[in-house]
Amino acid sequence: MEDPKELIARVRDQNDKGAIARLISIVERPVTNESRDLDEWLAQQAESGFVIGLTGAPGSGKSTLVDRLISQIRASDSSVAVVAVDPSSPFSGGAILGDRVRMQSHTQDPGVYIRSLATRGHLGGLTVAVPRVVRLLEALAFPWVLIETVGVGQVEIEITGEADATVVVINPGWGDSIQANKAGLMEIADIFVINKADRAGVRDTRRDLENMLELGAHDHRPPILETVATSGEGVEMLFEQLTDLRDGLISSGELAKRRAARRLAEFDRLVSATLRSAVESVTERNDLRDRVREGSLTPSKAAAELVALIKLSIDDKEGV
Amino acid sequence: MEDPKELIARVRDQNDKGAIARLISIVERPVTNESRDLDEWLAQQAESGFVIGLTGAPGSGKSTLVDRLISQIRASDSSVAVVAVDPSSPFSGGAILGDRVRMQSHTQDPGVYIRSLATRGHLGGLTVAVPRVVRLLEALAFPWVLIETVGVGQVEIEITGEADATVVVINPGWGDSIQANKAGLMEIADIFVINKADRAGVRDTRRDLENMLELGAHDHRPPILETVATSGEGVEMLFEQLTDLRDGLISSGELAKRRAARRLAEFDRLVSATLRSAVESVTERNDLRDRVREGSLTPSKAAAELVALIKLSIDDKEGV
Repeated sequence: MEDPKELIARVRDQNDKGAIARLISIVERPVTNESRDLDEWLAQQAESGFVIGLTGAPGSGKSTLVDRLISQIRASDSSVAVVAVDPSSPFSGGAILGDRVRMQSHTQDPGVYIRSLATRGHLGGLTVAVPRVVRLLEALAFPWVLIETVGVGQVEIEITGEADATVVVINPGWGDSIQANKAGLMEIADIFVINKADRAGVRDTRRDLENMLELGAHDHRPPILETVATSGEGVEMLFEQLTDLRDGLISSGELAKRRAARRLAEFDRLVSATLRSAVESVTERNDLRDRVREGSLTPSKAAAELVALIKLSIDDKEGV
Repeated sequence: MEDPKELIARVRDQNDKGAIARLISIVERPVTNESRDLDEWLAQQAESGFVIGLTGAPGSGKSTLVDRLISQIRASDSSVAVVAVDPSSPFSGGAILGDRVRMQSHTQDPGVYIRSLATRGHLGGLTVAVPRVVRLLEALAFPWVLIETVGVGQVEIEITGEADATVVVINPGWGDSIQANKAGLMEIADIFVINKADRAGVRDTRRDLENMLELGAHDHRPPILETVATSGEGVEMLFEQLTDLRDGLISSGELAKRRAARRLAEFDRLVSATLRSAVESVTERNDLRDRVREGSLTPSKAAAELVALIKLSIDDKEGV
C-alpha cells in the first residue's frame, strides 16, 4: 500500500483520480494501519460537503437523473463525486454497474469522480464502507457527494441513511409499490422526485404521495418535484431545491445533529462488525455449532466456550 | 442460591412449585455457576415434552383458550406448564398478568404450573430466557408446555418461534388486522384457531385465511379450527389436533430438525448477548460515544479503543 499522505497530495496537486481510487480501497478496510493513518487525517478535515442519497425502485430513472444532476452541479462550477452502490453485486471498482455506462460522458471531466461500490467480504460490508468512503470524498474537497443505490431494499435504505439528505425517486403510476414501500421511504425522504413526469398518472401519484405524507408525522413536509431526466426537464429546479435544503439544514443546526447521530451509528456498527468478525474467525466455531445442533453440548456451554476463544486483537490485521 | 440438584429433587419428590420457581430464576440467568450446573443436568434430560406457542392480538381470547386447554390436557391425565410472556411489562413472577387471574382455578392442581415472564435486565432479555425456561419445564417432566404471548409484536413472534409448534388465534372480522400481520403470522402458524366463533363473520374470516394461505409457500396447509373459549366449544378438537400434530412432527423427524435449529439459534443469541453485555459494561463507553458524537474522535478510532477495553471473562458474574 502506498502512503495515504502521498496519495492525498497527488489528489490535491495533480487531481489524480487513480489516487482517489487507491485511497478508497484503503478506507474501505477500517482496521489496517494505512486506514488508521488516513482516519487521523480525516478527523482533521472540515466537514464541508453535502451528501445526498438518491433512492428509488430499479427502473425509476435514478441513474439518468444523477447524470443530469452532475451536469447541473458542474454548471454551477462545483465539483461532484458519485458513489453508486449495488448491494446485490459482488464486484466493486471503477465502472461496473450496467448503467454506469451512461455516466461515461463525465469521466473526462476533472471535476467529476464516479465510483461503484459493491458487496465485498470486508468488515461489516457496505454499511460500514459507504460512510467512510463518503467522508473521504468530502475531505478530498468535493462539495457535493451523491450516493446512488440500485433498489430500495433494507441495506439500500440503510445506506441512504448515511447521506445528509435523501431524495426518493418514484414514477407516475407507482401507486401500488408506494403502498408497499411506504414505511421505509416516507420517513427518510427530504425531497420526492416524480421522474418520467411526461408520462400519464403524475397527478394521481402526487395525490397518493400527499395523502401518505399527511398520515406521517413530518415536522417538515418534503417537497414533491417533477422531472423528466431523459430531457433534463426539472433538474435545474431539483438542484435549486437541494441547495436550499442544504442551506436550511446548515443554518438550523440540523445538519450538525444528523452528522453527530451518524457518527455514533458508525461507531456502533464498527464495534458490532469487529466483534462479529472476531466470532467468525474462531476456528472451533463450526465444531461447536455442530455439537449444539446434534445436542451433545448445551447452547450456553457452547456459547461460553466460544466467547472464551474469541481474540479481540484488531492490530495490523485486515478484518476480513 | 440453593443447590439446583436439591431443588430438582424437591420438584420430583414433593411436587414443590416453589422449587420450580427458584429453578426458573436460576435458568433465566445463563451465566452464573448455578445456571451452569443446571445446564449440565438439563443436557442429560430427554427432550420428551411438546412445546406449543399461542399467539394472537390482545383481546382475541388467548388466555381463556389456554385456560380451557389446560383443563383438556388435565382430562387426558397429562400435566402441563404454561409460560405467559409479556414483553411490555417490567414485572416477572408467579401471577402478574391481569388475565392470569382466570387461571387461578388451576393453581391448586399439582399437575399444572403457571408462570409469567416479563422483561428484565437479564442477559439478552426474554428471547434468551424463554427457551431456557421452557427447556427446564420440559426436563421437570411436563409433557405439555404452553407459551402464551400477550400480543403479536416482533419480540412475541420471536418468542413463539421457540415453541415446537405455533397456534395463531384470531377472531371473526379480524380481516384488516390479518392483512397487516400477514407476513409474520402466516408463516409461523401450524394451526389457526378462529376463537369467538359464535360471532358473525366466521365464514369470511376463514375464506380470508384460506386465500392468504394459498399465496404462501406452505408444504403443509395449517388446519383452521373454530372455538368458543368462553364455553369450551371446539377445545377438545384443538387438543386432538395438537396431539396429532405432535405425533406427526415426531414420526416425520421434523420435530428433531426444528429443535436442532432452535438450539443453534439459542447458541447464536447467547454469543451475541454476551458480547453486547461485554460492550455495555466497558466503563469508558459513554465517554467514547460523547467524543464520537462531538467529532473529536473518529468512529473507527473510538471503536478500536472500545474493543481493546472489552473484557470477555464471563466467569462467576451475572451478565446483567
